[in-house]
This record gives sequence, C-alpha cells and structure tokens, in this order.
Amino acid sequence: MTLTKRKSFRLGDLVKQLGGELIGDADVRVSQVATLESARPADITFLTQSRFLPQLDRTQAGAVILGPEVRDASSLPRIISPNPYAYFARVAAFLNPAAVAEPGIHESAVVDKSARIAESASVGACAVIGRRAQVAKQAIVGPGCFIGEAACIGAGSRLHANVTVYHDCRIGARCIVHSGAVIGSDGFGIAKEDGIWKKIPQIGRALIGDDVEIGANTTIDRGALDDTVIEDGVKLDNQIHIAHNVRIGANTAIAACVGIAGSTKIGRNCALGGASMIIGHITLADNVNVSAGTLIMKSLEQPGTYTGVYPSSSHQRWLKNAAHLRQLDDLANRVRELEGRLGKAKRGKT
Amino acid sequence: MTLTKRKSFRLGDLVKQLGGELIGDADVRVSQVATLESARPADITFLTQSRFLPQLDRTQAGAVILGPEVRDASSLPRIISPNPYAYFARVAAFLNPAAVAEPGIHESAVVDKSARIAESASVGACAVIGRRAQVAKQAIVGPGCFIGEAACIGAGSRLHANVTVYHDCRIGARCIVHSGAVIGSDGFGIAKEDGIWKKIPQIGRALIGDDVEIGANTTIDRGALDDTVIEDGVKLDNQIHIAHNVRIGANTAIAACVGIAGSTKIGRNCALGGASMIIGHITLADNVNVSAGTLIMKSLEQPGTYTGVYPSSSHQRWLKNAAHLRQLDDLANRVRELEGRLGKAKRGKT
Amino acid sequence: MTLTKRKSFRLGDLVKQLGGELIGDADVRVSQVATLESARPADITFLTQSRFLPQLDRTQAGAVILGPEVRDASSLPRIISPNPYAYFARVAAFLNPAAVAEPGIHESAVVDKSARIAESASVGACAVIGRRAQVAKQAIVGPGCFIGEAACIGAGSRLHANVTVYHDCRIGARCIVHSGAVIGSDGFGIAKEDGIWKKIPQIGRALIGDDVEIGANTTIDRGALDDTVIEDGVKLDNQIHIAHNVRIGANTAIAACVGIAGSTKIGRNCALGGASMIIGHITLADNVNVSAGTLIMKSLEQPGTYTGVYPSSSHQRWLKNAAHLRQLDDLANRVRELEGRLGKAKRGKT
Repeated sequence: MTLTKRKSFRLGDLVKQLGGELIGDADVRVSQVATLESARPADITFLTQSRFLPQLDRTQAGAVILGPEVRDASSLPRIISPNPYAYFARVAAFLNPAAVAEPGIHESAVVDKSARIAESASVGACAVIGRRAQVAKQAIVGPGCFIGEAACIGAGSRLHANVTVYHDCRIGARCIVHSGAVIGSDGFGIAKEDGIWKKIPQIGRALIGDDVEIGANTTIDRGALDDTVIEDGVKLDNQIHIAHNVRIGANTAIAACVGIAGSTKIGRNCALGGASMIIGHITLADNVNVSAGTLIMKSLEQPGTYTGVYPSSSHQRWLKNAAHLRQLDDLANRVRELEGRLGKAKRGKT
Repeated sequence: MTLTKRKSFRLGDLVKQLGGELIGDADVRVSQVATLESARPADITFLTQSRFLPQLDRTQAGAVILGPEVRDASSLPRIISPNPYAYFARVAAFLNPAAVAEPGIHESAVVDKSARIAESASVGACAVIGRRAQVAKQAIVGPGCFIGEAACIGAGSRLHANVTVYHDCRIGARCIVHSGAVIGSDGFGIAKEDGIWKKIPQIGRALIGDDVEIGANTTIDRGALDDTVIEDGVKLDNQIHIAHNVRIGANTAIAACVGIAGSTKIGRNCALGGASMIIGHITLADNVNVSAGTLIMKSLEQPGTYTGVYPSSSHQRWLKNAAHLRQLDDLANRVRELEGRLGKAKRGKT
Repeated sequence: MTLTKRKSFRLGDLVKQLGGELIGDADVRVSQVATLESARPADITFLTQSRFLPQLDRTQAGAVILGPEVRDASSLPRIISPNPYAYFARVAAFLNPAAVAEPGIHESAVVDKSARIAESASVGACAVIGRRAQVAKQAIVGPGCFIGEAACIGAGSRLHANVTVYHDCRIGARCIVHSGAVIGSDGFGIAKEDGIWKKIPQIGRALIGDDVEIGANTTIDRGALDDTVIEDGVKLDNQIHIAHNVRIGANTAIAACVGIAGSTKIGRNCALGGASMIIGHITLADNVNVSAGTLIMKSLEQPGTYTGVYPSSSHQRWLKNAAHLRQLDDLANRVRELEGRLGKAKRGKT
C-alpha cells in the first residue's frame, strides 16, 4: 500500500521457511498477500471456502494457498496446507514483519528518573512514564502513552499511540495494545449510604498475560481488592469493556463492543461474538461460544454455542409481532385451557 | 454561552445571505440561535413540529424560522423556509462559524522533518506527526493528536485533541474528527493453529472521504488486505466501531454505539439507529434504516426500516412472558395439534 | 499490592474514626481491606450476604465487618454496622486515601498564559490547557489531558491521564474522571438538505456537577443549544455515551456501555444496568431501575424495575424458538380462532 519497494521471495524459499507442499514453479516470486479479487501477479492469495472457487478461476495472483481437498482447483503455482487460513497468516506475517523498536527515549518524552527503561526499548514522543515503572527489552511505548507508577510493560510488547496504563498494572511479553486503550482504570465500586454513593477504592491491579492483543479504546479495569486477570494468548477487539475482577482464560477471543461485568470468569478458548454482554459474578466454562448481540445472564457450565437475539424484520412486521410478547403468558394459558377443554393429555411442557 | 460579545445581524441581511422569505421588520437584529423555550430577544428560534406551537406562543425570541404551512402562526418577525430545520442549521452555522486554523506548528509539537505541513495548517501543542505524513492547507491537528507515518489529513479538516491516525491512512477534506477517535487501528484478524491464535498483519488502510464527521472515541479499523472505506458525507456519532474492510456509502448517518463487523457493506443514505449492530460479510442496500438496538444478521436488499428489539416492560411482567420464549416452538406445535383435532384447514403458516 | 510498607491502625481507633460497634480485641491492627478468601492477618474483611458464611469460617483475616444479624457468626475481632458494605467502603477509603495533588505545573505542560491554575493544583506532564481555562485548588490534571478554552475544573477534582475537556465545559468539585473520557464533544446534530447532511453547530456546554465519577472512555456531548447536565453525585462507569442535552439526575448510577440518546431526562437515584440503551426525547422518573441489556423506548413515569431482554439458550434451541417470533401475530390469531370455534368467552386480552 505504500510506495516503498517491497522485497520479494521465491515460493520455494517460502515453503522452506514455512512448510507446506509446493506444486508448480518454485522460482515464482511473491512480495505481498492479497485477496482473490485484488491480487496481482506479485501477490500470493488463498482460498478458505469452496464458495470462492469462481473467484479463484479469475484471480490475477501469482500463486495461491489451497487446502488438500482442492489441490488441483487451480493451475497456478500453489502451496497446499491442511489449514490454508493459518498458512496464509504465516505468509502474511513473514512478508509483513512487525515494526522493530528504534531503541531510545524520544527527547520530548517525560520519563521519571526512577523508571527502568531497557536499552533496546523505544519510548515515543510526548510519552509519560511514572515513578518506578518498567519497560522491558524491545518493548515499544508509542507517542502520547502514559505508563503509571510501578507499571510494567513486558519484553517485545508494543503500545500504539495514546495508550494509558495505570499504576501497578502489568502487561506481559509480546502484547499489542492499540490506541486509546485504557488498562487499570478504577472498577465501578460504589456503596450507597444515606442516599449518597461512596466510592470504594480499587486497590487490585490489571494483569495482562503474554501474547495478548488489546483493541482500540478497549478498557480493562483494575480489581477492587483482588486483581483483574487476562491470561496468555487472549485476543480482544476494539471497544470492549472488562470490569473489575474479571478473569479471561487463555486463548479466548472476544469481538468488538463486548461488555463483561464484574467478577465474571470466562473460560479458556471461548469466543464471544460482537456486542455480546456477560453479566457479573458468573462463570463461563472453557470452549463456550456466545453469539453476537447475546446477553448471558447465568453461568454456562457446558461448552457449546449460546444465543439470545431478537430476530429483525421489517418495522411493520416487528410492530405486529412484538406486541404479543407482552401477552405471551396469557397466550400460553389460553392454549393450555383449550387443551383442557378438548380433554387432551398434554404432550409438551409449558 | 461565553462572555465574548457576539456580533449581531439584521434579519434582512440574513435572508440576503441564506435565502428564505422574510415577514416583518428587516431591521431586527439577532446574534444567536436558541430553542423556543430558552430564546431571548437577541436570539432567532425555529419550529419544526406543530406540537411545539404552544411554546411558539410563549417564546421570548426576537425572530423565528417557520415552515410555509404555519407562516402566520406567530406575529414575530419570521423567516419562511420549506425546510425550517435545515434553514436553522444554515443560520446556526452562519452565526457560529467553525474555528479557523491559527497557522503554525506549536513549539511543543513533534513533527518529523520529512512530514509536509501546509503553511496555513495548524498543529497543536504536544501533537506528534510521523515520517512523510501530510497535513493539507487550513487543516487543524489538535493538541495531543498522533498522525502516523505517511498518513494524510485533507484540506480544512479539523482533528480535535487526542485523535489518533495510524500510518498510511487518509482523511479527506473538511472532515471533523472528535477527541479519542482512532482511525486505522488493526482489524481483528486472527487465525487459529494448534490451539493458538496467530495474528494476521493488517496491511490495508482506512480511507475517509470528504465532509465526514467522526464522533468521540469512535474507532475505524484499517483493512486486512484491501481498505476500509468511509465515503463522502458520512456522519458518525460517538463510540461507533467500524471493523476492517467495511465500506460505508455516501451520506449515511450512524448514531452512537453502533458496531459494524468485518467486510460488511452499508449502502448510501442509510440511517443506523443507536446501538444497532450489523454482523460481518453482509450488504445493506441504499436507503436502509435500522432501528436503535437492532441486530442485523443477514443482508438487506430492499430499502425500508428494519427492527428487532425485545420490548421492555416491568421486570415482573418480563419474567412471566420471557419464560415462554424458550418454549415457543412447543406452543406453536400445540396450537397446530389443536387445529388438527378440530379438523381445521390452517389459515396461516407457522 | 505495592511493596511500600503500609501503615496499620488499631481496630479501636478505626471505630473511633468511622463509627460502628467493636467486638473483640481493640488492639488488633489492620492495614488493608481484602476479600474473605484472600485476606491475611493484617487485613480486615467483610460479609455482605449470608451465602458467604462458609468463607467467613475459613478466612485468614485479622478482623471482619458484619451486619447485626450475624454479629456472632465469627469469633474474630469484628465491627458491627447496620450497612456492612458501606462501612467497608469507609474503611477502604480510610486505609487508601486518594492521591494528593503535587502542586505545580509540570515543565512539559503547555498552559496558556490567560489560564488560571490554582497554586495548590497539579498539572501533569504534556497536559495542554487552553485560553482562559481554570483549574481550581487541589485539582489534578493528569498527564496528556487537554482542557479547552474557558473550561473549568473544580476544586479537588482529579482527571486521570489523557482526558479531554472541550471549551466552555465545567467539571464540579471532587469529581474523578478516568482516562480516555471526553467531555463536551459536539452532539450529533445534523440536518438534511438536498440529500446532504449539514452540521448544526453545537453551542451548548457539558456541565458536570460535584462528586461525579466518570469512567474510562466515557463520552459526554455538549448541548446543541442548551446544555447537557450531569447533576451532583452521579456515578458513570466506562464507555458510556451521553448525547447532547441529556440531563442525569443526582445520585443516579449508570453501569458500563450504556447509551443515552439526545434530550432524554433521567431522574434522580436511578440505576441503569450495563449496556442498557435509552432512546432520545423521553423522561425516566426518579428511582427507575433499568436491567442490563434493556432498550427503553418510551418514558417511564413510575419508579420500579424495567426489563426487556431476549433470554439466551443453546443456539439450536434459539433457532427453533426464535423463528416463531416472526409469526407470533399469526399464532395469536389462530388461538383466538380456536377459542371462537369452541364458543369460548375469552378470559384474557390479546
């Protein structure tokens, strides 16, 4: 996308580096990944679903990544992999390596003299780093970030511009935190006395594991008494809210606009769809999937997919149907009464 | 609202500038717009719905903007326009012109020497502008903003304080971007391999057209491979999430807290109500309206208004009715059975 | 949680300071609050619900706060209070006093010479304060904050890092504003003319009362013509959106991810659950509770709890049941017809 001339690689060398079976000319060179539709001859593309086969026929790509079941669906030079999407991810990462820290502290950054910044770390312009904070080797703290007192940023992690990390919080190694994210703000702890809300100091921390990605404007509150914990490998999209004392299990992926209320525990390898909401003080087992837009109001002890969404329709149709929702109990009673009058032994439960 | 003395204008001159038919004293002067209720003699007010006629009687305003059908509903000096609300918008903009850039780069801003900043542009305190970035004439980059490498800010656009624009992204001319907005953060692209999520580099851009407004803390992700595109004249409220590879058609307006998942295409002149959610990989036609709080799960090919919201009621009533939702299939079967026993030819479909 | 040595207090002195009845050794010393499960001998813990009694038996705490009905449920030194949670809040605040401003303006902050900063106030690194802005005594403006022209920050208020306050807005005394919050951004005011959206200047202000807490990345828009008003003692969690001209009554508490559309009035002492949404131009009475995830579409004139949430279930079950929602009107008609054929005088209304 930029005008910089890109480096290209032989398919033969790609396969040597990344695995996979090569069919066709090993000397074909590619420099970038692209979709079937927008690919040009210097690009390598990929096919993950058979419904895209017609686009495969028309692609201008120089090479393609295919699953074994469609290994001959194209005459292009191709790499066969049992998981073509993951292979594509590997190629994309190989061709687009992450930015490397330019070691050093920008002269406009304000770093407390008691903070420990690794020599190989990078601190951007106008970043502010508090007392006793630590930034480990090869970490990047972007322009305008704030790192509070005694907070730690792990090795190789990258905070994009304008991220805020409150005092005492920890971000593990190789994390990526996007702009506007706030880690360790106070949880919503209030107690009512004589009609007035009193603030409860939030003395726990927010602890982020290794290899976690946190999206733009996502907020993760610190714990009230104990800590809020995001385990290793968790992937969080944008504008997610994680309340105090939540724990998210390893390798769980959460789509944008999700809210998780206080003290809830989410298992490992879960997937929460966009704008789903999980109330407080419940537990979701490992391998639970929650559909987009679903509100979960009680613990889910079994893996599986859970959904609760009002289906949309034309507004007129919705008006007619939705009105009955407020009388559904009445309707059910009337059906039961009809059944009684017809002397029927009920088949189902109500 | 401030203590600065405001400039006032003759009604006659307003009409000369902005059109409309004047009834009454052309020499009356107004200096500000106001609601019917809070207007004082130096203010001009407006009426858009006949239900506000009683307030029109009581207003203290010096003048009023009316539609032709109520041209004589007041004896105040008045301007008649076929679209009084749009006329009010014009007067409001005339009386409250947008801030003009104070040309120059604040001495505390950090601007890479390869960036190109127009002489008439303004770069605020503690703003950071990366390599090869461009800020066009009369553009305003607010305090604390970050503009990434090779990003472009179009002529006359205004970024309020603390906006983040990632590398390679483009913002068109005459845009307004509010504080905390993040443009071009990575899309949520991950692929699972051996139980671990691998990040897929996001190499597309976020491209924002001309005359776009972007609300506070709204996030627009860059594309995965191709670009995320916001067409001209789109208006985005606060805390909206737009995922990678989404396209929003020209002049579409989106209310706050909306989420649009990846690769979805929204047509032109659409209106998405607050907190509506649109899943990924679907298409909404031009002129589609989505009601507040509605989740759209499939493509909408026809213009119109679509709704899917669970109607609220007292909690007690909700408890009674909602329980039946989980047995709705059973209830429908029982009704069908009753119909069968009564030998009825079914009238409707189930 | 930090390595700093903490100060400890005699239980006898705590009760002298904070009230409550002490049972047991007044010389026991505590230095921190903790949960029943994680408390150690130097901690004081608390019990708010009888279902936690088993944990009370096992706690390692040095003392406990109990309600009068369970005054003898533990043999630990204990403080009896009619509202143990509020008492705990008092103890927690006593043991964890809020940060005190380090008076002075950081040398990297950019403060307009016409701004008035109290001598006892603190302005952090890289903060930017505009013309004629005011920061009252003992207020803390965190690193990277932006305070616009003529905005006022009240006495003793604390803005954490990277908060944005637009021109002319006011924040009262003793407020806490978390990182990423935006106060006073433009409301979503647009008028369509000839198929194009025209911006309506937003000339009202955002006025925040005393003792208000505003969560991370929450946005409060300024008014269109009149002001947006948050009354005293309101508590706002993270990622809340409050649109132009909304008024929130005193001591109302709003959980995360809530959206309130334009011109709506929320009463006093209300509680809005997480991710609830309130449409525009309506009024909620005092003492209204809205359940999490509920969309309120009309004014609520009576106190009480209101709910409207589609209950979640397994995806399979949801598929079967939700399909009938689109034919609910038809189903109701069929039941009515069956009733008619059986000659029944209807018991309920439909």
